[in-house]
Amino acid sequence: MTRAAAPPLDPRAFLDRLFRAAVGAADPARTLARHLPSPPTGRTVVVGAGKAAASMARALEAAWPGPLSGLVVTAYGHALPCRGIEVIEAGHPVPDAAGEAAARRILGLVGGLGPDDLVISLISGGGSALMALPAPGLSLAEKQAVGRALLRSGATIAEMNCVRKHLSAIKGGRLAAAAAPARLVTLAISDVPGDDPTVIASGPTVPDPSTFAEARAILARYGIDPPAPARAHLEAAAEETPKPGDPRLARAGFALIATPQAALEAAAGVAREAGVAPVILGDSIEGEAREVARVMAAIARQAARFGQPAAPPVVLLSGGETTVTVKGRGRGGRNGEFALALALALGGAPHTFALACDTDGIDGTEDNAGAFVGPDTLARAAAAGIDARARLAENDSHRLFAALGDLVVTGPTFTNVNDFRAILVVAPAGP
Amino acid sequence: MTRAAAPPLDPRAFLDRLFRAAVGAADPARTLARHLPSPPTGRTVVVGAGKAAASMARALEAAWPGPLSGLVVTAYGHALPCRGIEVIEAGHPVPDAAGEAAARRILGLVGGLGPDDLVISLISGGGSALMALPAPGLSLAEKQAVGRALLRSGATIAEMNCVRKHLSAIKGGRLAAAAAPARLVTLAISDVPGDDPTVIASGPTVPDPSTFAEARAILARYGIDPPAPARAHLEAAAEETPKPGDPRLARAGFALIATPQAALEAAAGVAREAGVAPVILGDSIEGEAREVARVMAAIARQAARFGQPAAPPVVLLSGGETTVTVKGRGRGGRNGEFALALALALGGAPHTFALACDTDGIDGTEDNAGAFVGPDTLARAAAAGIDARARLAENDSHRLFAALGDLVVTGPTFTNVNDFRAILVVAPAGP
Repeated sequence: MTRAAAPPLDPRAFLDRLFRAAVGAADPARTLARHLPSPPTGRTVVVGAGKAAASMARALEAAWPGPLSGLVVTAYGHALPCRGIEVIEAGHPVPDAAGEAAARRILGLVGGLGPDDLVISLISGGGSALMALPAPGLSLAEKQAVGRALLRSGATIAEMNCVRKHLSAIKGGRLAAAAAPARLVTLAISDVPGDDPTVIASGPTVPDPSTFAEARAILARYGIDPPAPARAHLEAAAEETPKPGDPRLARAGFALIATPQAALEAAAGVAREAGVAPVILGDSIEGEAREVARVMAAIARQAARFGQPAAPPVVLLSGGETTVTVKGRGRGGRNGEFALALALALGGAPHTFALACDTDGIDGTEDNAGAFVGPDTLARAAAAGIDARARLAENDSHRLFAALGDLVVTGPTFTNVNDFRAILVVAPAGP
Repeated sequence: MTRAAAPPLDPRAFLDRLFRAAVGAADPARTLARHLPSPPTGRTVVVGAGKAAASMARALEAAWPGPLSGLVVTAYGHALPCRGIEVIEAGHPVPDAAGEAAARRILGLVGGLGPDDLVISLISGGGSALMALPAPGLSLAEKQAVGRALLRSGATIAEMNCVRKHLSAIKGGRLAAAAAPARLVTLAISDVPGDDPTVIASGPTVPDPSTFAEARAILARYGIDPPAPARAHLEAAAEETPKPGDPRLARAGFALIATPQAALEAAAGVAREAGVAPVILGDSIEGEAREVARVMAAIARQAARFGQPAAPPVVLLSGGETTVTVKGRGRGGRNGEFALALALALGGAPHTFALACDTDGIDGTEDNAGAFVGPDTLARAAAAGIDARARLAENDSHRLFAALGDLVVTGPTFTNVNDFRAILVVAPAGP
């Protein structure tokens, strides 16, 4: 039996295609319309925050059968023109006064609505910083001081969220409580492990099981001494976040319109059609970028050498968010750092290619989404007089990949399902 | 259609069984006999070094049809009584005078043999430190000073090996060269990525492609200023290591009798028989233990939530050697550290269990092989007043797992195919 030979694969074009498929699957223009709530007899007010807020607002305007008004806030550079919904840009990841003012206006917009009205809340990653509104009596600077101390403390994400929600006027379900008695529907794009609605943008429209007492205990556990107004607010415990069963949230619905897993599945589908076996390792891989790269390199070696977890041609897909402990003074985001560490860990392994990008199109604070790695990455760097190991030590991946022409540049994608990593092994390792 | 329910799985017993299967597959008593060379017309002299040296010598004595004599060196506590082969214990991982003396005697034993004689060289992990013999004119302390500087420098394993071989009187093929004109057969147990014969115990019996010039360049690259005698030796470059094609090694054969992959495959077979899908992620996973644990936890979450890379019941298997950057003052080896970090990263995830052990039976310098993790590990630690996060910060996994009764204790196994990790997910995650 003969079999038609597959057309030769251009690894870089193929990996670019997978990335575009992943981002496309998270594009509100393609996913939002099928999650629309029924229109109300009263008004429909749109609010929201996150890196995808503007594109979600546009997609909603394109699909919604009636009039819309409202306000969403997104990161600088991520705005898109809308017809009726106002789009405001604000600071991310460090909150600023623009975001604080937008959050205050959002609370104002949803207050005073009646039971016949509908609030559509458009939530995506980054929304927590973009819609930062300190509890009454607290300044943004005081709230941020606690946040910074928590980041340094080793507290878990869940612990940080608990404290943040109890220093906020809008997080932890407070936005939904403010919208009652109107009906509220949240359409969300997840960028968090487990797609937990209480974690995405710190859950402004979902019940918060955590308490003031827990927030105080967490600060005590990590020896954090908050500014006096923050301490006073936590001790007064004047108004708890809405808990599960809170009647104000009885008419609040929630739908995920895009997830990291759906993006990975879309890439997997493209791979499968091209005759490449996709292996999705995880939609929420976390850890120090360079260490994650070493593990992924080992799994790629296993595929090349033993055909496990699948035989070449195979592509290892993963999502989630790595971290970079910055020790050097170079340029580059976590995906560039991952890509450079991967190139070093692979050590020029033949037949092995990779792409690592942020699905929002911006890797850290750079102009690129991520970077591409091939078997000759290290050799070409060396030929260009670049010491790859030294660049990694300096957290300077951007310079290396820029010199090689291996940055992946897309500009803002107006969505955000976190990182996308694909490692392609096209043929078995030699003997 | 009905289907007989599988008997309920006892996760701990099951994981113990997988570990025993992995270690069993690396037991020379079961694997060595099928790799025996043909007996010589002259004498058969046995030499060797490594954590498995004594059990390899015993297995050889049990299977060999003629008389044997010789000397092998193993780590303190890893000796076993042999009939004709002398077994010496020496320092590991820090070489000592006992190992140096043994190496000198081994060179003496293989010198002066004739073309009708046979040398059987029994090589396993740890052999590099156990058979450390500085080049003429160098002291052990001077050689070790260079090794320590390399370890701190960020040099790769390949770079460190190149330098070590060029400061040694026995590594990098020199033992095989000394044995010529006798026939030589190496039986080896691999504990290194790729099972590269030039890397296992620094390749005392295989050609070394690296050169004195490269060794000098590596020291220059990392700014290492070696002790004067070491510098003088590298600059004199008096006697290069045997290169591929060296006639002295023309009669040197090499066979792997056990590998990390074969051990993982044995565990996979046991899992498959029990109705649990095995996924071998890699036989040579490297990286900081706590970061590797975070990646593995994410893959386990993926299996529980999305049935990828395989649906529960599934066991994720991996080998290789993690590292621990010691910052605390606690007790415990890299497998205990991995297990504790995994428990924290899993955060009490239901249906998920794990075992991480060193296949040599000794995790670091402790009395245990590794540790067991279950969904209730953190809760039981908290109930016992143990702060798991603080114990990890102190590199103090041994204390925690000892208090919980979750150390895995086997004693020395007399073999070494590096680490063994198994993460079992018995059921899908709940909604």
